[in-house]
Amino acid sequence: MTLRFDDRLMFRDALDRVHGLDPQLRETMPARFADVRAKVARLTAGGDYGFTKLGEQAALVRRLSDWSTPLRGRYDHVLVLGIGGSALGARALLNALKGPAWNERDAAGRAGVPTLTVLENVDPVTVQEALQRLDPRRTLVNVISKSGGTAETLAQYLIVRAWLEAAVGDAREQLVITTDPEKGALRAIARADRITAFDVPPGVGGRYSVLTAVGLVPAALLQMDVAQLLAGAEAAVRNAAAEDLAANDAARYAAWQWQAQVSRAANVHVVMPYCDRLKEFAEWYRQLWAESLGKKLDREGREAFRGPTPVGAVGTTDQHSQVQLFIEGPFDKTITFIRVLDTVNLLPIPARDNLGPDLSYLPGKTLGALLDAELNATREALRSQGRMSMTLEVETVDAYHLGELLMFFQLAAGFAGVWYDVNPFDQPGVELGKVLTFKAMGKSSG
Amino acid sequence: MTLRFDDRLMFRDALDRVHGLDPQLRETMPARFADVRAKVARLTAGGDYGFTKLGEQAALVRRLSDWSTPLRGRYDHVLVLGIGGSALGARALLNALKGPAWNERDAAGRAGVPTLTVLENVDPVTVQEALQRLDPRRTLVNVISKSGGTAETLAQYLIVRAWLEAAVGDAREQLVITTDPEKGALRAIARADRITAFDVPPGVGGRYSVLTAVGLVPAALLQMDVAQLLAGAEAAVRNAAAEDLAANDAARYAAWQWQAQVSRAANVHVVMPYCDRLKEFAEWYRQLWAESLGKKLDREGREAFRGPTPVGAVGTTDQHSQVQLFIEGPFDKTITFIRVLDTVNLLPIPARDNLGPDLSYLPGKTLGALLDAELNATREALRSQGRMSMTLEVETVDAYHLGELLMFFQLAAGFAGVWYDVNPFDQPGVELGKVLTFKAMGKSSG
Repeated sequence: MTLRFDDRLMFRDALDRVHGLDPQLRETMPARFADVRAKVARLTAGGDYGFTKLGEQAALVRRLSDWSTPLRGRYDHVLVLGIGGSALGARALLNALKGPAWNERDAAGRAGVPTLTVLENVDPVTVQEALQRLDPRRTLVNVISKSGGTAETLAQYLIVRAWLEAAVGDAREQLVITTDPEKGALRAIARADRITAFDVPPGVGGRYSVLTAVGLVPAALLQMDVAQLLAGAEAAVRNAAAEDLAANDAARYAAWQWQAQVSRAANVHVVMPYCDRLKEFAEWYRQLWAESLGKKLDREGREAFRGPTPVGAVGTTDQHSQVQLFIEGPFDKTITFIRVLDTVNLLPIPARDNLGPDLSYLPGKTLGALLDAELNATREALRSQGRMSMTLEVETVDAYHLGELLMFFQLAAGFAGVWYDVNPFDQPGVELGKVLTFKAMGKSSG
Repeated sequence: MTLRFDDRLMFRDALDRVHGLDPQLRETMPARFADVRAKVARLTAGGDYGFTKLGEQAALVRRLSDWSTPLRGRYDHVLVLGIGGSALGARALLNALKGPAWNERDAAGRAGVPTLTVLENVDPVTVQEALQRLDPRRTLVNVISKSGGTAETLAQYLIVRAWLEAAVGDAREQLVITTDPEKGALRAIARADRITAFDVPPGVGGRYSVLTAVGLVPAALLQMDVAQLLAGAEAAVRNAAAEDLAANDAARYAAWQWQAQVSRAANVHVVMPYCDRLKEFAEWYRQLWAESLGKKLDREGREAFRGPTPVGAVGTTDQHSQVQLFIEGPFDKTITFIRVLDTVNLLPIPARDNLGPDLSYLPGKTLGALLDAELNATREALRSQGRMSMTLEVETVDAYHLGELLMFFQLAAGFAGVWYDVNPFDQPGVELGKVLTFKAMGKSSG
């Protein structure tokens, strides 16, 4: 793994005292990890960790390439219909990897890399705006639902398919469906209408599905390097196989979060990249963490009401928003910084005549250096006030490193589920709201 | 005030028991409110509540109209340089009020309403992308900093001014500065170079400044209805003058949050509009709440480490992300829904042949009705699990109602400061990071 995980500011020296760490807890952590690993191994064998089995996707990678390459230049827009785990991954990929060629045209006016619009919500104003903006003749629509029965996505599908058909007649070749290989309404539609379809592997939950067809179909259409995404993820999987907690970064990340919870009730977990391209990554993380660890029942079925509150932030922007609370508020947070190394020397700040002391220190530096100095200053300010933080460093934001980051957090969520003693792969709480929605909308029991 | 505040799901019936409310607390709340009002009145007299004195801005409204009207059609783009309170308000306005005419051209190809780009961060990749995308000859740049010395904004200013000058030579008429009326580097630049400047009233902090020139200059350039924004805000100010807690919505909102904290340590405050146009509003709220209430010291200067964690969410989107945690996790949250009434009947869902039970309940309904049914279902699911929520209802998202919403939350933050016994108008914690950044960048003590 090229990702560097720095946890030196967790519970060290004075921080042990401020945060009330029981020294025994630190001593017993490696021994407890053996237990955590054994549980993960049992669950892996049982199929719960399907998201780590990326090697099985070689056929998918070939199929994506064979299918998407002839589509190049055919569409100006890709429109994803999906919500939650069917949308957040695509949005994180787009935000991080959207290159300068995105939405540009060649000399003949032909589209290069298409734009991507992700419709998640059923807000009618948003849907109308998107359909007015996009050209239905030049739009490929990817309908994504793991179950195939998601109300929001199916309602969008009915509206968008009618919109396509009003413009082109038979719109089947402008549709691609990503869903369960056998079950559900979307699979039935794909079969009946012979629409191109990709499988969501049954052993992979929605919030762990960004590196399956759920995220990779949009990635391939946007000409991202799918193989490198998976190669980076593989590196994170290999690192997470380490038997030694000191060498297993994702497991150690989860262990620190659990220790913070146990010793100080630090139940707010902030992820704060100093990089605008990782803003949506932080939103993706928020679902992963909230749905995986926010549980009423523990593994033995007892009422426990567990779950840290995940918070996304972006540096430096949130230094002028949330950091006041992080530095001075309750001792209930851990902060995870993400530092990107290759932007430090970008964009020199130009000089002007007659700059006063408020500006004269800036020329000769780069904007990237200011960004990096602010990360260091914020981390140091937090430390000086007894606040804990961790830092993940990546060389650059490309497909490989993003694959590493995505898989690192997925693995950490899996490990955290064992430390927190909850099932990180279900989401029973959202079912109740679905039942009540169906009732209000007059859906039959089917 | 047209805003309807429904607090019937706070601490009523079974919820009192689940959340451990001391019945005495409910009894004493109106009496305590007399004390809160007296403190607010003293602080108002001392100038701390400058953000409520909107009547004093009649001259600003006239000047904005006189200044911005001749600029119509002159610029395709408005570029705001600002961070924190100098950016989040403009973003919330843009997200909520961006109309269908935004970025359209008339038959002669002339720009109608310009686009708005807000540069907050010093991420060099973001700044480079924006400067490549925008045409410097058709861009008006609004540099915003209350103090006039914000490092991020000044660094951007040097880069953007050089970018303008490289294209047009003397770029002074394409710059407009919003800053302190007397002090700071930006005011000195405006004076020396005779650049158009607007004042940030000295008695109004950054996070309370959206309805001053900070937010209203971009609003006027985007042809939003500035007078209606202020009229809506005035209605909220009038409501907040009520002596009776039962009639004073912003004060009661703050009181419930404080009660939730006192009785159950509910220190996560979620704001969840069911409306995509209020997504940025929720981000604006996050700064307001975090910086106002996240404080190391109480009003008497004692170490208190107070501050709820504000969380933004959007329905239905976050039903598939954060709601699992809200329904099943710790009893440490209050949820504030925002419901918009006039979208309920929008966008009929069309029928198709051969729809199975997963889809056949949808045609004949509207997408807006589905959105609204999901809000009700989520609120009911939360209630059935013993979770508290409040609901704010607005008729529509226009300038008037947005002005009401913005001022409602600003007033609530002011009241909450008194209940929580902290100063809601300072932000000492962010100063330390600034000092350390300056040190790393080699800034002199000036």
